[in-house]
Amino acid sequence: MFEKALAEINAEYERLLARKNSPRREYNGIYTRWRHPVLTRAHVPPTWKYDMDPRTNPLLMERLGVNAVFNSGALKLSGKYYLVPRVEGSDRKSFFAVAESDSPVDGFRFWDYPVVLPDTCPEEVNVYDLRLTQHQDGWIYGVFCSESKDKDDPSLSAAVAAAGIVRTKDLKNWERLPNLQTPSSGDAAPSPQQRNVVLHPEFVDGKYAFFTRPMDGFISAGSGGGIGFGLCGDISRPVLEGEIITSRRKYHQITEEKNGAGAVPVKTAKGWVHIAHGVRSTAAGLRYVLYTFATSLEKPWEVIAEPGGYFMAPRRGERAGDVPNVLFTNGAVVDGGSVYIYYAASDTRLHVASTTLERLTDYVFNTPPDPGRSPDCVKQRAELIKRNLELRNDE
Amino acid sequence: MFEKALAEINAEYERLLARKNSPRREYNGIYTRWRHPVLTRAHVPPTWKYDMDPRTNPLLMERLGVNAVFNSGALKLSGKYYLVPRVEGSDRKSFFAVAESDSPVDGFRFWDYPVVLPDTCPEEVNVYDLRLTQHQDGWIYGVFCSESKDKDDPSLSAAVAAAGIVRTKDLKNWERLPNLQTPSSGDAAPSPQQRNVVLHPEFVDGKYAFFTRPMDGFISAGSGGGIGFGLCGDISRPVLEGEIITSRRKYHQITEEKNGAGAVPVKTAKGWVHIAHGVRSTAAGLRYVLYTFATSLEKPWEVIAEPGGYFMAPRRGERAGDVPNVLFTNGAVVDGGSVYIYYAASDTRLHVASTTLERLTDYVFNTPPDPGRSPDCVKQRAELIKRNLELRNDE
Repeated sequence: MFEKALAEINAEYERLLARKNSPRREYNGIYTRWRHPVLTRAHVPPTWKYDMDPRTNPLLMERLGVNAVFNSGALKLSGKYYLVPRVEGSDRKSFFAVAESDSPVDGFRFWDYPVVLPDTCPEEVNVYDLRLTQHQDGWIYGVFCSESKDKDDPSLSAAVAAAGIVRTKDLKNWERLPNLQTPSSGDAAPSPQQRNVVLHPEFVDGKYAFFTRPMDGFISAGSGGGIGFGLCGDISRPVLEGEIITSRRKYHQITEEKNGAGAVPVKTAKGWVHIAHGVRSTAAGLRYVLYTFATSLEKPWEVIAEPGGYFMAPRRGERAGDVPNVLFTNGAVVDGGSVYIYYAASDTRLHVASTTLERLTDYVFNTPPDPGRSPDCVKQRAELIKRNLELRNDE
Repeated sequence: MFEKALAEINAEYERLLARKNSPRREYNGIYTRWRHPVLTRAHVPPTWKYDMDPRTNPLLMERLGVNAVFNSGALKLSGKYYLVPRVEGSDRKSFFAVAESDSPVDGFRFWDYPVVLPDTCPEEVNVYDLRLTQHQDGWIYGVFCSESKDKDDPSLSAAVAAAGIVRTKDLKNWERLPNLQTPSSGDAAPSPQQRNVVLHPEFVDGKYAFFTRPMDGFISAGSGGGIGFGLCGDISRPVLEGEIITSRRKYHQITEEKNGAGAVPVKTAKGWVHIAHGVRSTAAGLRYVLYTFATSLEKPWEVIAEPGGYFMAPRRGERAGDVPNVLFTNGAVVDGGSVYIYYAASDTRLHVASTTLERLTDYVFNTPPDPGRSPDCVKQRAELIKRNLELRNDE
């Protein structure tokens, strides 16, 4: 009985990992969604959940549940694809784990053990949303959110967020550096918080460059103007010398409530392409979509293109989950001319969409900006329609 | 390659528009839902999204995305059915567009261009939720929400809502009148806002009559008592002389959090039937349902019947969308003895439900009112059951 049930659990797990993915038919010319998620809670090895000893667990019960696998760092290394997602136990605490595949769209298998981060912050209660940066200096950096109880606030749910930093050469041995300090975010709040921090892959003026997100509080961006940018000379003592705002929050645009950096910027011939997220408020809570912008190759803090509207928004089953109505990315892989964007749906599972550097660049630089007001949007669209109808008449 | 992909996009669009709708089997005696939505983002012509010039868009990418098509004004004119929904671009700005069909339940095709409203309010950033009233004076009026940034509030997401008014004879040429002023809503707030304003189709005491919804803020109805009613003598200078409350918000009824007028009132032999919406608060945000009430033919502000409970609530796929858990209507068509109610699901797509004047009237006047307390609801239901069981025993 025990052996048979265990064999079925393992067989089901192997069937899932062997399942081939396929592109969805839906066309927009910009990217292709893939049918199956690349990582879900079902992709977590049974050894992580069951006690498989019939003496101590004769009923073969899950002893440590897993709730979700989502927001993932991503990179390609020595011909293999690696995802390092947020794995969330049923106890709400999350951690990182490496999943590896020969393919960018399916077959991701977790290594035997989750990542063991050096436990250097006694106040840290949770970690999540790792961005993996293959830096010019030869290291692979992981920048993540380190969350602690807010000791100054008696509310049980008051938390503070900081950017934790680790580095590795092999995804196995991780060295932890001090958390990022952003004293200049003080403009936004008396005690600035940071989430969605991304390390730029190249030196800027010989320094390490971070994209930040100054916030008023744990959830609220408040007066924070958008995605920040700052430099630091010594990564072992990471203090930003100052922050300026790159992509701004704007009224009645997709960034109105909040925005934040997502994947590590993708280098193209025309500029750095950023796949970020924008947040609006609805009668049923916040809605997260992905949007893009480009910064200059010479001045990677300077926005040189920002398409109007969202790049991707929740569709179909993506809409439902632990936090409904959320798309989020913190990892993309550039693979020759292809780009794989790993995006999580509703804080529950990890999907992939594929495009090409050519299409992504075309999208970012040739999609018109948001004109800001409904009458101007109608004008913009009517001009597009007019050109199309004239083309049809020319035929 | 380009030509083939474009042909496929156009063919898929035509397949969608040719799809026949069919009634759902589910029976309640009151109305029938139809299987397919009548308008979705996929019903928007490809000419509105793609640049179809291979020289400027060789990869055939969407240049102006469309996010959703929902809340729609509706009318029948010269034997054809017209919907004028809220079309929302991926940039969050919405606008109006006319879709036409020979059938009330399928085949709706957008005209070549969206509606171009006269741009008379420089502060207006967004427009939505048009109610189309075929008025006794010979004009077709459109009353919609005109939204602007709240200049007195530094928060990026602070907005103010007012009722915009346009009129037309042919749905092509639109004349814009000044926004409605409702100084008497001042009871509800220092600076009253208005959404969900509906123009009554007939003169009342020789004046134009509006159903209003006095609010404390942009989202919150606050102390506003419910659906208001007011008169104005001169539609070219639309200022309400006063407002009284018709259908009231009530504790622990479906209107607790907010309510608002929906479709233009439907005239029946027994009274004006209103299909409105009621809103409650949940742990996951607001939930919108449709409810009905009737006002007197002589005094169209006087509620003479109000069935207990909702008329329609979100079901199945209707529950998911950009703002989950929302049904909303702002348009219905009376067509001989039939009534077509166009209702949007979760701020994402437009559905239709059909009924008859006979059934709608029967529902509104013979459905018992909400008794207000659980014990009284049990008593009400037990009496119904008792009568039914006695009928069975009589057989």
